[in-house]
Amino acid sequence: MSGPRHLVSIDDLSLAEIRELFERAQEFARDPRAWASLCPGLISASLFYEPSTRTRLSFESAMLRLGGGVVTAADMSQSSASKGESLADTVRVVGGSYSDIIVLRHPSEGAARLAASYSSVPVINAGDGSHEHPTQTLCDLYNLWVEHGRIEGIDVVLAGDLRYSRTIHSFAYALARFGANIICVPQAGFEMPEYVLQRLREEFGVEPQRADATRLGSLAAASDAMYLTPQKPHQLSLFTDARGWQVDRVDAVYMTRPQTERHGAGESTSEYLRLGKRAMAEESLRDAVVMHPLPRRDEISEEMDGDPRSIYFKQAARGVPIRMAILGTLLGRLDSNAESGAAPVQRYPVKIGDNPCPNSTCISHTETRHVSPSYQLASRSPLRAHCAWCSQELPFTHVACTSTGHYHLASAPCLRRVRPDHLVFMRDEGQARELGFEPPQRAARTCP
Amino acid sequence: MSGPRHLVSIDDLSLAEIRELFERAQEFARDPRAWASLCPGLISASLFYEPSTRTRLSFESAMLRLGGGVVTAADMSQSSASKGESLADTVRVVGGSYSDIIVLRHPSEGAARLAASYSSVPVINAGDGSHEHPTQTLCDLYNLWVEHGRIEGIDVVLAGDLRYSRTIHSFAYALARFGANIICVPQAGFEMPEYVLQRLREEFGVEPQRADATRLGSLAAASDAMYLTPQKPHQLSLFTDARGWQVDRVDAVYMTRPQTERHGAGESTSEYLRLGKRAMAEESLRDAVVMHPLPRRDEISEEMDGDPRSIYFKQAARGVPIRMAILGTLLGRLDSNAESGAAPVQRYPVKIGDNPCPNSTCISHTETRHVSPSYQLASRSPLRAHCAWCSQELPFTHVACTSTGHYHLASAPCLRRVRPDHLVFMRDEGQARELGFEPPQRAARTCP
Amino acid sequence: MSGPRHLVSIDDLSLAEIRELFERAQEFARDPRAWASLCPGLISASLFYEPSTRTRLSFESAMLRLGGGVVTAADMSQSSASKGESLADTVRVVGGSYSDIIVLRHPSEGAARLAASYSSVPVINAGDGSHEHPTQTLCDLYNLWVEHGRIEGIDVVLAGDLRYSRTIHSFAYALARFGANIICVPQAGFEMPEYVLQRLREEFGVEPQRADATRLGSLAAASDAMYLTPQKPHQLSLFTDARGWQVDRVDAVYMTRPQTERHGAGESTSEYLRLGKRAMAEESLRDAVVMHPLPRRDEISEEMDGDPRSIYFKQAARGVPIRMAILGTLLGRLDSNAESGAAPVQRYPVKIGDNPCPNSTCISHTETRHVSPSYQLASRSPLRAHCAWCSQELPFTHVACTSTGHYHLASAPCLRRVRPDHLVFMRDEGQARELGFEPPQRAARTCP
Ligand SMILES: [Zn+2]
Ligand SMILES: [Zn+2]
Ligand SMILES: [Zn+2]
Ligand SMILES: [Zn+2]
Ligand SMILES: [Zn+2]
Ligand SMILES: [Zn+2]
Repeated sequence: MSGPRHLVSIDDLSLAEIRELFERAQEFARDPRAWASLCPGLISASLFYEPSTRTRLSFESAMLRLGGGVVTAADMSQSSASKGESLADTVRVVGGSYSDIIVLRHPSEGAARLAASYSSVPVINAGDGSHEHPTQTLCDLYNLWVEHGRIEGIDVVLAGDLRYSRTIHSFAYALARFGANIICVPQAGFEMPEYVLQRLREEFGVEPQRADATRLGSLAAASDAMYLTPQKPHQLSLFTDARGWQVDRVDAVYMTRPQTERHGAGESTSEYLRLGKRAMAEESLRDAVVMHPLPRRDEISEEMDGDPRSIYFKQAARGVPIRMAILGTLLGRLDSNAESGAAPVQRYPVKIGDNPCPNSTCISHTETRHVSPSYQLASRSPLRAHCAWCSQELPFTHVACTSTGHYHLASAPCLRRVRPDHLVFMRDEGQARELGFEPPQRAARTCP
Repeated sequence: MSGPRHLVSIDDLSLAEIRELFERAQEFARDPRAWASLCPGLISASLFYEPSTRTRLSFESAMLRLGGGVVTAADMSQSSASKGESLADTVRVVGGSYSDIIVLRHPSEGAARLAASYSSVPVINAGDGSHEHPTQTLCDLYNLWVEHGRIEGIDVVLAGDLRYSRTIHSFAYALARFGANIICVPQAGFEMPEYVLQRLREEFGVEPQRADATRLGSLAAASDAMYLTPQKPHQLSLFTDARGWQVDRVDAVYMTRPQTERHGAGESTSEYLRLGKRAMAEESLRDAVVMHPLPRRDEISEEMDGDPRSIYFKQAARGVPIRMAILGTLLGRLDSNAESGAAPVQRYPVKIGDNPCPNSTCISHTETRHVSPSYQLASRSPLRAHCAWCSQELPFTHVACTSTGHYHLASAPCLRRVRPDHLVFMRDEGQARELGFEPPQRAARTCP
Repeated sequence: MSGPRHLVSIDDLSLAEIRELFERAQEFARDPRAWASLCPGLISASLFYEPSTRTRLSFESAMLRLGGGVVTAADMSQSSASKGESLADTVRVVGGSYSDIIVLRHPSEGAARLAASYSSVPVINAGDGSHEHPTQTLCDLYNLWVEHGRIEGIDVVLAGDLRYSRTIHSFAYALARFGANIICVPQAGFEMPEYVLQRLREEFGVEPQRADATRLGSLAAASDAMYLTPQKPHQLSLFTDARGWQVDRVDAVYMTRPQTERHGAGESTSEYLRLGKRAMAEESLRDAVVMHPLPRRDEISEEMDGDPRSIYFKQAARGVPIRMAILGTLLGRLDSNAESGAAPVQRYPVKIGDNPCPNSTCISHTETRHVSPSYQLASRSPLRAHCAWCSQELPFTHVACTSTGHYHLASAPCLRRVRPDHLVFMRDEGQARELGFEPPQRAARTCP
């Protein structure tokens, strides 16, 4: 595809490109007011289908610092959309001549990918529901890179609500990709979800280890800690005793607020972690920078604000230079030497039957007119597939093959040999029969 | 008046000026990012009393492309207006030094004319209720001009809800003024209103003809078509047989969405037209561009999006260069060789009695403090008058003369000789007597 | 403190600085479009926790005229704040790198001072509840200065709702500070509050005089007038007869709207003043300019709009150049020769007991996490103290001394000698005892 370059997911960028962004951001940060000659005449459009003032101002400030202009729709959900306009149409109009780049915030998972597939100008994902928020992740990584000079090999504590925080999940994948080690210190009951651990295992070879976090003191007092380290089985083997890995010293503590708006009935956070001077007095945390995506409520005490290790306000401030780097790059105003993109992900259409995505706020459900349900393979054995829009795992008990016309149990070994674009996912055997596929017993031998 | 030049109605512009705008827009469109030196230091204020993100962004983008600045009040109805401020006052403040030009969107018909009469800087009407939206109309005409190189003599199908769509009515007047031919293909029950046809007849000599639209195929299957051609009685005479005019080939199909928010109880659009590949496969439509003011819902099928005749996204994109031309001209940054303005319309105060405008959302009713009800004559025989603010036709049964003191039936021939500023419109005879006018029988001979 | 310079209160500026701002504004006003090279690359952030479109547009226009950029949060109360973020945190993020100056509007009294104490960039108070709105006051003074060439010694009528109008109170203090004379002509029942008169007396030596305002005609017909003149006791003595001071001629009439949103149950303004041509026909008002902070409702008749003495629209327009001067100065882009600041006001922490501020919307109550209750002394005898955040007078019956450990009646003479930072304010004697202070009889001799 020779269309414009988008930033829908952090996976759209190669490690080399990300490092290049960091270096540019570094330059911008030295004197943010000196770059107004980079993008004059160019316009960025903020299309926010839910308000997010902080993110919006950060992008708009970055564009203005580059000398560009900004048009703003701070709450699209109350505008044209009310006349029933699809996101695909809006993006084609706004990207047509109104603007040279679109910054999109949307409550539906997958919205940014949809927008990118229709837009003639670059689309930046500024948050699509609980899916991705790549510029936040890049900002967090950039902070580690600035503070520690590298990301590979550093030890990062993720603390608090690790279950519902989108920021944390994306950050964990990115840390693993960059080779950092993660120590999970969840609020009790808000542990890192299984599907996140699974992806960490499948993509980065991360095997979770029980961790002895007594040296973290009160920070880890109320929970079991877990150690995640990518691609280093030889190291891990050192720790495969009963006690697991021993936390020694930490480079960063990343706190998150309780995502109370996503919590269920029984999920109380009245006893939520509160990081203060006492907790941070442990020797193991002596050089640990304290990070937080903000806004915070009580999870970091105000007494920490003056502590030199507290970088959460700096962290937010660095959102501007990193976004300047992203905007300048996608607008083609910065030359790049880095090899671009990761290997493109294969996506396959869902050919027969209902849209199998179980996520009701997925863009494949909320904007059916312009979205063809599609999936990508996560693994062949066991067979697992994700919604190509919102990345949610597809549930199925049986899988059919459009070429042979039979269906199988999802665990059937023969499925490994079916071409991905021949796969059809069935929520149950009944659906397979309704759609006219033949039962597995008669078909077993003929596959594929 | 030596005040600033406004754009309240497309009638404020001469044909020569409109053509000049097209030529400028053409230049701007060639490289929209190359004009940032035209309006530096100038500021446009978006005053939107109802949200209309698309229109607002289009204007703001145009101003930024010209190098100007923008201040935005995206929903004035929730701001100072709540402290009871009149539009006349707001315009005098915002136009005082806050901005060099005002882009006004307002739900009351006539609001832009009121604003213009108080503002010391140019006012652009970005939609005043269901009255006018001249930059949309200019954009539509500009598209025809770009696509066909001319407007005069081309054949344009207007399809869909021709009854309630403001866009369509303004577009029809403008097409007639430019000498284009119109083929009305309404949704059944949503035909072009009589008052629109009347104005077309009075101003442009358009006599509606029954049209045989069988060659349009399914597009016209469910409705009677009508042919409207301006100023060509000799041509029309060719078709005055029983079958009317035969539709042969078409240069443009202009679709509109059902204006469901204005529909009454019995007006269903469940069977609304849906323009797709099949309908557009007719030979008569081979070279017809497909236009739509957007947002669309279902009235144009997505399958048309890739068709080279579909220009609706281009059409929206061209809104920026045409608005650049309008802004640059009104701000005095573009020299003009065209003879300016149409002949100024005479407006007369309503001297006695109540405000006769029947439109309850007319600015003459919603902002009484700063508006003197006034009217303009539409014809002398039969005597017809329009509200000078909202253009709605005034209803009356009797008319009096302030000079002679008598009243007459509205159809009385002697009224033709009364000076317009002596006319008083009466909803009935009783009102005439209440106001102290004498009955017609005794007065008949003395006029004037 | 070597932090940035803020504009929280007009008292933050010396008279010399204010005059310098006027001179700059004058220059800007000559050609507002010629200064775009003053602040390129700089960004102003509009943080509005309640909408105020007029004020916001005035600031944003000023920043654009200076060549700067603007990021806007037009209604912060509906954004991040909903995730529970404190103002102190927001200001640290937005002032971190998003912007070079913050324009803050907030419904809590004292909010701007709080913001300033946390921000690393200048904060301009664009209205904090019913507390201060210094740029409005500066704009009003600037208008008098432009119209009359000076402020000292001119006679200004303040008319209308003098009780609830924040603008009027701040304006009265400022007029007194500049040595102007004030004639109060209140709407009956809406007289200038006692605490305002008290501050005028204490800070500027103003002794209210009964005034004979018969020469003002109908403007003063329905109320008792009062004359306020600063620092001129020798002059005042001339008028200390039964009739008080005789109003002779007036330089300005400043009308205010009824602050109906703050009125109690029995406070009707159905008979509110309405300034029109007849009232302004008095000889005493021949040269009086008519001012109004806008928006107006009915308190100034439209018939005055064309009167050359009516400057209320000019007054609003001058808000842009004066704000250009303020922005340029605080951003450090204008050299200053004026001696800076008034003597800094001493503020003392409230050490013991509850927050004594009686104002429930004071920022010391609404943002407890980041605000330490504190006060400033207004006078030693009688002992009076103000909330250091919202300036409301603290109510107390007894006062204790932390050093000696005793408490006294608020009127006790010995309190004059207690160090301000030893004072503790008690709502009643019971509170004093609860907090462990000793009763006054036993302690009387030992103070201090
Ligand atoms: Zn999905
Ligand atoms: Zn098979
Ligand atoms: Zn009307
Ligand atoms: Zn007559
Ligand atoms: Zn207070
Ligand atoms: Zn004492």
